[in-house]
Amino acid sequence: MHSKNLTLLTDLYELTMMQGYYDKQDNPTVIFDVFYRSNPFSSGYAIAAGLEQVIEYVKNLNFSYDDVDYLRSLHIFSEDFLQYLSGYHFTGSIYAIPEGSLIFPKEPILKVVAPIMEAQLVETAILNILNHQCLIATKSSRIVYAAGDTGVMEFGLRRAQGPDAGLYGARAAVIAGCVGTSCVLTGKLFDVPVMGTHAHSWIMSFPDEYTAFKAYADLYPEGCTLLVDTYDTLKSGVPNAIRVFQEMKDAGISPRKLGIRLDSGDLAYLSKKARKMLDAAGFEEATICASNDLDEYLIHDLKMQGAAIDSWGVGTNLITSKDCPSFGGVYKLAAIQNKNGEFEPKIKLSENTEKITNPGNKTVYRIYEKETGKMKADYICFVDEEINPEEDLLLFDPSETWKKTKMKAGTYTVREMMQPIFINGECVYTSPSVKEIAAYCRQEKDTLWDESKRLFNPHQMYIDLSPRLYEVKKQLLDRMSADD
Amino acid sequence: MHSKNLTLLTDLYELTMMQGYYDKQDNPTVIFDVFYRSNPFSSGYAIAAGLEQVIEYVKNLNFSYDDVDYLRSLHIFSEDFLQYLSGYHFTGSIYAIPEGSLIFPKEPILKVVAPIMEAQLVETAILNILNHQCLIATKSSRIVYAAGDTGVMEFGLRRAQGPDAGLYGARAAVIAGCVGTSCVLTGKLFDVPVMGTHAHSWIMSFPDEYTAFKAYADLYPEGCTLLVDTYDTLKSGVPNAIRVFQEMKDAGISPRKLGIRLDSGDLAYLSKKARKMLDAAGFEEATICASNDLDEYLIHDLKMQGAAIDSWGVGTNLITSKDCPSFGGVYKLAAIQNKNGEFEPKIKLSENTEKITNPGNKTVYRIYEKETGKMKADYICFVDEEINPEEDLLLFDPSETWKKTKMKAGTYTVREMMQPIFINGECVYTSPSVKEIAAYCRQEKDTLWDESKRLFNPHQMYIDLSPRLYEVKKQLLDRMSADD
Repeated sequence: MHSKNLTLLTDLYELTMMQGYYDKQDNPTVIFDVFYRSNPFSSGYAIAAGLEQVIEYVKNLNFSYDDVDYLRSLHIFSEDFLQYLSGYHFTGSIYAIPEGSLIFPKEPILKVVAPIMEAQLVETAILNILNHQCLIATKSSRIVYAAGDTGVMEFGLRRAQGPDAGLYGARAAVIAGCVGTSCVLTGKLFDVPVMGTHAHSWIMSFPDEYTAFKAYADLYPEGCTLLVDTYDTLKSGVPNAIRVFQEMKDAGISPRKLGIRLDSGDLAYLSKKARKMLDAAGFEEATICASNDLDEYLIHDLKMQGAAIDSWGVGTNLITSKDCPSFGGVYKLAAIQNKNGEFEPKIKLSENTEKITNPGNKTVYRIYEKETGKMKADYICFVDEEINPEEDLLLFDPSETWKKTKMKAGTYTVREMMQPIFINGECVYTSPSVKEIAAYCRQEKDTLWDESKRLFNPHQMYIDLSPRLYEVKKQLLDRMSADD
Repeated sequence: MHSKNLTLLTDLYELTMMQGYYDKQDNPTVIFDVFYRSNPFSSGYAIAAGLEQVIEYVKNLNFSYDDVDYLRSLHIFSEDFLQYLSGYHFTGSIYAIPEGSLIFPKEPILKVVAPIMEAQLVETAILNILNHQCLIATKSSRIVYAAGDTGVMEFGLRRAQGPDAGLYGARAAVIAGCVGTSCVLTGKLFDVPVMGTHAHSWIMSFPDEYTAFKAYADLYPEGCTLLVDTYDTLKSGVPNAIRVFQEMKDAGISPRKLGIRLDSGDLAYLSKKARKMLDAAGFEEATICASNDLDEYLIHDLKMQGAAIDSWGVGTNLITSKDCPSFGGVYKLAAIQNKNGEFEPKIKLSENTEKITNPGNKTVYRIYEKETGKMKADYICFVDEEINPEEDLLLFDPSETWKKTKMKAGTYTVREMMQPIFINGECVYTSPSVKEIAAYCRQEKDTLWDESKRLFNPHQMYIDLSPRLYEVKKQLLDRMSADD
C-alpha cells in the first residue's frame, strides 16, 4: 500500500533532458555519484539511510498510461519519446554504502551506472529520499549521543513535513539509535517499537487529575507513565501520580514500568524535585520522561545540570532537523563510457574549490587501525585499484597535500564500503530489517573515535584520494584551465 | 494512487487514549480546535493550506485487517476494542477556514466536533498535514512578496523532507503564489504549471558548451532557457547562449521564450552584466532566471541592488522552510458536551500565558473596513453570537484590554471564516482546484494592509475576542486559580 509509484516524482528537466538524449539517438552509459559536501550541524560524520526506499522506487519505476497522458498534455514531448517512456524500466547498475553506515563528505555514497537517459531520470527521487533519511538519521544520532545511556523516543509526527516525513523520519531515527517512535505506521511497516501514553486532553476530559490518572492506571497497569504537568507539576501532578502508584501497590499490582512525564517548565529543576518526591514515597523504580522542545544541545545541558531524567521524547527538532533542515546530497556526472567501453572521467569545475567533483568510476575503502579497530581514514580510488594491507599505504589530504600519513604494512585493515544493489537492472541486494540496520549502526559508531562524535567542533575524519585519482583530477583541472 | 490509507499515521497515545474512553463506555461529544500561537518567520500572517488532504485522510479513515492484526500484536489492546476499530469510521463534524485564506495566531483554523474517541484519533494526521502545508505556503508567500512582479518557481524537490514533502510542498507553494514547480507529480495531480530546462550534466555530456546549447535549442525552440554557468558565465556561457539565439534568429525561428539561467556566482553582478550583453546583441526579450540558495531575504537584497533578474528558481530554503522548518499548529480540547447537550467550555492552563487556550464552541469573523476593503481585525466568538454591521462593534485586545477600537455601525463588513467541511461524518465541501485556491489567495492578500506584508517587523493583525468569550475565559481562569 505504501510502495506507491513515484515515477513522476521528478523534476521536469530530467524528462526534457531525457528527450534530448533520446532525440540525439546517443545514449552512452554514464556514471553519476551521489555525495554531499559537508556534514550538517558541523557534525563529525553523517549516517547513511534511505536505501531501502531507493530500491523500492527503482523497482517500481514505470510510466503508467495516466503518466504518459499527462506528459503528452504538456505538448513538449514527441510521440516517439512518449512511446519509449511507456516501455521504460531501469536497466542500469547501482552501488551504495549500506544503510546505517557512517558516511563522510565528498565520498560517493551511491553510484548509478546506466545509459544516460535512465541515469538522468532517477536523480531527483534518489536525492529526495537519501537527503531526507540521511538528514534525520544524522540529527537523531546526535540527540542519542547527547542522551548517553538514557533512551530517546521519536515523537515528532505532528510537526513533520507531511506524512512521509513522519513515517520515514521515524524509520531513520530508529536506525540512528532512538529506542522507539510514537508513529504507529512506522511501527507497523518497519517492525520497530512504538511508544506513548496519554495527552493533556485525557486529563482535561476527566473531572480532576487524580481520576484521570486512576483511570489510566486501571487500564494500563503493565506500563503506566502519567503526564503530570496539566495543572501544576509539583503541587498536583506528582502527588496525584504517587497516590495512584501507591494504590496500585496496595492492590498488589506491580507494573513492569511506572513513570511520569514532564512536558513543560524547567526540566532540570522539576525532574530533580520529582525524583526526590518519588523516592521519598518509595518509588525509586519509577522513571521520569521529559519532553518539550528538546534537542541535543538542551539534553546535553540538562544532563550537565544533573537533571533526573531517564528518557526523552523528542519531537519537532528531531523530525524537522530544525537547525539544518536539509542534507546537501548532490548527483554529479563522474564519467562517460567511450566507444571502446572505457569510462572517461568527467569533472565539474566551479569557482568554489569545494564544489569541484571527483572524476571517474570510483569506490570507497575504509581504513581501520588494526590495534584499536577504529577508523583511520576513508580512501576514495578507482574501482580497479586494490589496497593490499600487507603493503604500506600512503594517505594524504587532497586539498592540503603536504599533510601525509603512512600506514605501515600489517597495521591496518581495509573494508570496501560500496556494495552492488542493482546489476543491469536486477536487484541483487536484500535490505536488512530496521532493527538489524540499527544494530549495525551502533557497531559502526563504535569504530568512530570519540573525538569525532562530539557535538561541538568534532575531529573531522580524513577523506583521502588515491594517488592515481588525485593525478587524474589534477590533469583534468589543468587541461580545463588551459582551455580558458 | 496517491490517496493512500493513513489511518495508522497517528501517535500511539491517540489509540491508547481511545481505548481508555472505550473502556469507560463514556464517549461524550467534544470540540477540538486547531490553532497556532505565533506566526512563523515573525511574519504578519500565515496562509491556510492542506485542507484537501485532510478531507481525503478523513474520508479514507478505516482500519484494515492488517492494521488491526498489527495493533493486536502490541498486546495492549483488548479484542473488544480491536473489534470496535475494525468498524470505525468518522461520524463527527469538521469546520475549517478554506485553503488560501490568510490566518492569524490563536484563532481556530479547523474545528473537530465529534465523540471524543473519534476526535482524539484524527489529531496527529490533521496536524501533520496542516502544519506542513501552512508552513510551506506561508514561506512561499514571503518569497513571492520579495520577488514583487517577477515570478518565483518552486525547484526544491530533491531537498524536500521525503516524497510527500516535495509533492505537497509544491502544491502549497503554488497556492501561495509561485508560478509553477519543477515537480512533475505535483503538476499531474494538481494541474499546476511544471517548469524546468536542463542541468549542468546536460552541458557536460557534450563535447562543449556551444554544442550542448545548440542541441537544446534545436529540441526546444519554443521555450529555450540555457544554463550558462557550467564553465564561465560571462566568458563562455552568455556568449555561447547569444551565439545560439542569433543562429535561431538567422534561421527564422522566433521562440515564445528565450532566456538564460544563472546558478552560481554573484547574481546581482552577473545578471547586470549578462543583461547588457544580451541587450547589446539585440536580445532584449531574453529573460534571466536565477537560482542558487535563494530565499526572501536574498531576493529582496538582490532586487535592492538592481539585479536584472526576471524570474527565480527557489529550492531548499522554500521547500524545507529553512529558517523555521515547523509550523506550530496544535489541537486543543475546547469543550465537552454535557448530558443536556450543552457544550461546556474547557480551558488549558499554562504557566506561559501565551499557551492558555480559548474555551468553548467558537467561530471566527473577519472584519473589513468598508471604505478600503482592507482587513481590520479577526473576531473570535461563540458560534451563537452574531455581528450586525448595522450596529457599533467594540474591538479590544484580549491581553492588553485597555486597547480598544469602536467600529461604527455601517463602516464595516463582516465575513464568517469557518465553513462546514464534514457534517455528522458526511463530507459537505468540495475543494476548489489549486488554481482557484491560488487566485483566491491573491485576493485575500489584496485585503491585507501592506504594513502586515513586510518581511521585517510587520504590523500584527488584531485578533480579538467577543466580550462574552472574554468573560467566560476569565471566569474559567478565576475558578481554576481559586481551586489551587
